[in-house]
Amino acid sequence: MTTKRSDGRRRVIIEGITPQVDCGLFPAKRTAGDEVRVEADIFTDGHDAITASLLAHREGSDEWTEIPMHPLVNDRWEASFRVAELGRYGYKVQGWVDHFETWRRDLLKRIKAESDASVDYLIGAELVAEAATRALGGDAVWLRERAAVLRSAKTASELRIHATDPMLHELVLRYPDKRFATESNPELTIVVEPVRARFSSWYEFFPRSSSEKPGAHGTFADCEKRLPYIAEMGFNVVYLPPIHPIGRTFRKGRNNNPEAQPGDCGSPWAIGAKEGGHKEILSDLGTVEDFKRFVAKAGDLGMSVALDIAFQVAPDHPYVKVHETWFKKRPDGTIQYAENPPKKYQDIYPFNFETEDWEGMWVELKSVFVYWIGMGVTIFRVDNPHTKAFPFWEWVIAEIKRDHPEVLFLAEAFTRPKIMYRLAKLGFSQSYTYFPWRNGKHEITTYLTELAQTPVREFFRANQWPNTPDILTEFLQMGGRPGFVIRLLLAATMGANYGIYGPPFELQENRPVKHGSEEYLNSEKYEIRHWDLARPDSLREFIAQVNGVRNENQALQNDWSLKFHSTDNDQLICYSKESDDRSNLLVMAVNLDPHHSQSGFITLPLDELEIPQDRSFEAEDLLSGERYLWQGLRNYVELNPSIRSGHILKIHRRMRVETDFEYFL
Amino acid sequence: MTTKRSDGRRRVIIEGITPQVDCGLFPAKRTAGDEVRVEADIFTDGHDAITASLLAHREGSDEWTEIPMHPLVNDRWEASFRVAELGRYGYKVQGWVDHFETWRRDLLKRIKAESDASVDYLIGAELVAEAATRALGGDAVWLRERAAVLRSAKTASELRIHATDPMLHELVLRYPDKRFATESNPELTIVVEPVRARFSSWYEFFPRSSSEKPGAHGTFADCEKRLPYIAEMGFNVVYLPPIHPIGRTFRKGRNNNPEAQPGDCGSPWAIGAKEGGHKEILSDLGTVEDFKRFVAKAGDLGMSVALDIAFQVAPDHPYVKVHETWFKKRPDGTIQYAENPPKKYQDIYPFNFETEDWEGMWVELKSVFVYWIGMGVTIFRVDNPHTKAFPFWEWVIAEIKRDHPEVLFLAEAFTRPKIMYRLAKLGFSQSYTYFPWRNGKHEITTYLTELAQTPVREFFRANQWPNTPDILTEFLQMGGRPGFVIRLLLAATMGANYGIYGPPFELQENRPVKHGSEEYLNSEKYEIRHWDLARPDSLREFIAQVNGVRNENQALQNDWSLKFHSTDNDQLICYSKESDDRSNLLVMAVNLDPHHSQSGFITLPLDELEIPQDRSFEAEDLLSGERYLWQGLRNYVELNPSIRSGHILKIHRRMRVETDFEYFL
Repeated sequence: MTTKRSDGRRRVIIEGITPQVDCGLFPAKRTAGDEVRVEADIFTDGHDAITASLLAHREGSDEWTEIPMHPLVNDRWEASFRVAELGRYGYKVQGWVDHFETWRRDLLKRIKAESDASVDYLIGAELVAEAATRALGGDAVWLRERAAVLRSAKTASELRIHATDPMLHELVLRYPDKRFATESNPELTIVVEPVRARFSSWYEFFPRSSSEKPGAHGTFADCEKRLPYIAEMGFNVVYLPPIHPIGRTFRKGRNNNPEAQPGDCGSPWAIGAKEGGHKEILSDLGTVEDFKRFVAKAGDLGMSVALDIAFQVAPDHPYVKVHETWFKKRPDGTIQYAENPPKKYQDIYPFNFETEDWEGMWVELKSVFVYWIGMGVTIFRVDNPHTKAFPFWEWVIAEIKRDHPEVLFLAEAFTRPKIMYRLAKLGFSQSYTYFPWRNGKHEITTYLTELAQTPVREFFRANQWPNTPDILTEFLQMGGRPGFVIRLLLAATMGANYGIYGPPFELQENRPVKHGSEEYLNSEKYEIRHWDLARPDSLREFIAQVNGVRNENQALQNDWSLKFHSTDNDQLICYSKESDDRSNLLVMAVNLDPHHSQSGFITLPLDELEIPQDRSFEAEDLLSGERYLWQGLRNYVELNPSIRSGHILKIHRRMRVETDFEYFL
Repeated sequence: MTTKRSDGRRRVIIEGITPQVDCGLFPAKRTAGDEVRVEADIFTDGHDAITASLLAHREGSDEWTEIPMHPLVNDRWEASFRVAELGRYGYKVQGWVDHFETWRRDLLKRIKAESDASVDYLIGAELVAEAATRALGGDAVWLRERAAVLRSAKTASELRIHATDPMLHELVLRYPDKRFATESNPELTIVVEPVRARFSSWYEFFPRSSSEKPGAHGTFADCEKRLPYIAEMGFNVVYLPPIHPIGRTFRKGRNNNPEAQPGDCGSPWAIGAKEGGHKEILSDLGTVEDFKRFVAKAGDLGMSVALDIAFQVAPDHPYVKVHETWFKKRPDGTIQYAENPPKKYQDIYPFNFETEDWEGMWVELKSVFVYWIGMGVTIFRVDNPHTKAFPFWEWVIAEIKRDHPEVLFLAEAFTRPKIMYRLAKLGFSQSYTYFPWRNGKHEITTYLTELAQTPVREFFRANQWPNTPDILTEFLQMGGRPGFVIRLLLAATMGANYGIYGPPFELQENRPVKHGSEEYLNSEKYEIRHWDLARPDSLREFIAQVNGVRNENQALQNDWSLKFHSTDNDQLICYSKESDDRSNLLVMAVNLDPHHSQSGFITLPLDELEIPQDRSFEAEDLLSGERYLWQGLRNYVELNPSIRSGHILKIHRRMRVETDFEYFL
């Protein structure tokens, strides 16, 4: 952040503006309706008073809103502006030495010390006369007259009354002398996205397995029938793996067998066949019309459909012939397949982002998004964005969002931390995280605190998944039913955005393809599965209950309020979340051990949570309905995983007491 | 920090370069001969190998030095360059996808898995042939031939030998393909200053009190006689309050009396009288020639002379008439004196940095520095820089250092933290600190850690003063002789730059003008004092001993190695410092209580300090000469302030043992 120095008389310094991502290179993220709190260090030399404004506008508009900033402590100032609409807002900070305010402040001190002299009023008269030259209409007349009074009034009391008149203060404030104002530079940016970018509950399933008839290939019509089941569980995003024609060359068989057997349906991520590519629908699933009907039905149930965008092709994708320069050719004339030596993925060709025709390729890839937006899709889960050139993402997301600011992008980049963060900075609305592998109290606390309480939160929005089709964690493999309950509770109450891959999740599918692997046995990635959704041991009702709590409690609809609280048992984790207005406060306590009862004391920072220390307060378990009467910092918790693994406690900060009765009022 | 995106094929990302001050708006600071360690996050999409370089040059020169960067962990890379000369260096980071290295790395994996195929060698041949087109002379010929061999060799073993030849690797590395290299932007800057900017021992005294004859006004000739006394104490900077004619209008009397009595000599900071202003010498002190002789004599004794620059004027300063527009005129025609209502400082007129003629004023103020540089002065202690416009300091320091990179500036800004840091960013080489008021273990540890171990250290160089003519702290007032010893020990061993105001310091002058004040009684600011330097209770020998330790131990000549270690007694503070090469390690233990013996265990992080845990090591007290045999993390310390208040322990990491004898070797 820099300040212009076009004139040596610009004496105000503006530093350290927040929010600010990488020196303003990237926008900070907010959702529609948010108050954006801007802070900055603002000061000047010497003892003069300063005034500062926050200036905000819709990007591209000349209409700026000016909001007065207020000093906090240690030369830090703040002001807020509301971002009501989707899209981009710009903001900057102005500060200037305020000679009128300096005069007024000093005059008040002089009057108090009875050392005010006539020259002090003459100085004021000059400042008021100057303000009059900047003022309009009646204000100018009023100020000129007041200047005259300050020059001519005879008695000290008269002078004091006119000089300290609040009306004078207000009118001069209205016409500040900004000749030597400092303005921050560069302009900073906020990207405003739909609320669903901040609060979303995802349910992923394979359309291929949606038929009620065992063995039959599911269709969009079957998927439609599945929607009420998902909606009843309280989800608001339905996410489908790729729905395009699947390559036949080097098609993968069941359990990732390099040789497919006749009838094997292959991996949906091996996109493209002679029927078409990324803008085509696998005929087994149905038609474009079927898909649109599915999207509309989901919408009727309050759910958005998220589509998987995987920018890679099967060898028989039409691109391979039409745009052969987009792929790396080897000296033997073959096309370079994906590999991580010595492993080979011959069913997949990656795009070559160093192609001479990179601009043509970018435009075509963008058109894939645009095509599905035309079909009603507003959310894209992007497969492995970290294996495509970063400049492409920055460009394509900005391009799409310029015309469709409602569209969201989820980055599926399970890779190194700096890369995950960079993708978020480039524009992805949400990102997968390391949550699947954070199981212990310390590692959960450290990681989630980094995401929720450091400047990372300005650009990186976590989406917490206990499982995915690629990730059946060891914890789920070994934790039994409580393992699934624990991971769901953690994901759904720590993450305002979370998701599960079902039905394997609710049916607690936990068999890996082999010991030490995180791949599912008989994964739907390579075959059709039939799921008995009505199984009595399904977690569907528990999930519905948890999502119900999420939907009804604003505390769980943001990540920034997440705070961890100490417990005296390392198997017990405790944390709280609050709504922005602090009216909705939830405290979660979870037993991280899927096998044993754990108990201990949790310590809540009552002052910070605005709970009176000297009174009882009520902790109402929103899952069991039980109500606990708690008092003081330390309270006891005991959780038996065979009964329940966690509490979601709604805190009623204050219990009624006798003084609340009307005859006490 | 941004990266250029002129081409979508620039796939490497460069982020988070350090050192970097405020997004590159200000230079980082180093001293001549330093190795500048540069780090950056560098990565690309996918699995390709990358290569990165640090590019450095003298600012303004086209000759760039390219230094290969090395990966650390977590996508962080590093490289260093040496700044041998005074002045400014620029640096930037380049990174590019290295297709040859990717091929080579993957080939080695393939060979290991015995899956290398002839097409792999053909790909290599292409890459080598491309390198040949970039190569020069014999290298080009060699590479062309090698490409041919990789195309034509018949056996696998032949191919493997030629492909993995280290010579091939080295030659291709020499001619990298930087077509799509990413380059960091903007260029970052280092300001290189003399070593004295990092390591200096200041002694301030009033020339007016330097006469051996009580009551007589000291002269530069007297000051000259004082120099050996100062040099023997081991100081290397002699700092004089202003030496200019002192105003007569509103001259201050003794003890800051608003009415001067006849014969009162006034405050040296009330600069200017009819005889002249900032480029004139008070005639009582002598002539320009006398001053030059004084400076030369100091130089002969290894000491620099630091002059006080106070940009303010007494009412009778010639500027007031010649440049009346540089001062604020009040409506009654009088000039605005300094004030902080209701306090008035009528003996001082501040410059008006909003004057129309600000450019003319800047040029004249700059010429004050230039004048004294001409007299041999290379260090300026700038009085209250925070009451002059910040843009002026940025300009004037850059201007002076362009022609005189050897010149140092010390900012005397005892003000709010952000302002102190800003002044340092703008170019001040050193800064006064809050050290005088940090007396407890926690507050010392927190503050000094902020200065030594956070990014603040890139731009802010502390200069630690236990006292100044304006600051006789309550600790010194109440701590007796041990109070002075403690504060000297702390300043001189925590701060590579430190200073004292003498003779009051060594003579332990501790009487304030009144209870609750930090002003000295009968302050030299307003009168001549006579000091008995030979008093037997003087701390001069102790100071000489401490400065001797500083001069002989590189550990005390830097601030960046300062680390605090835990003690089990809050009155005992323990910290260590090391030389850059780690060969010189000192551990300090100080009793912060001036009145009582304190004892306890200190815990040293032996691993971090590279002291073997399983052996004894020697702690040699450089003040007392005592030697302690220590072992393990915890060792006992007892300090009686009537004997000594602190240890400066030189650690001999390893004691000789029997296996060091030659017959064991």
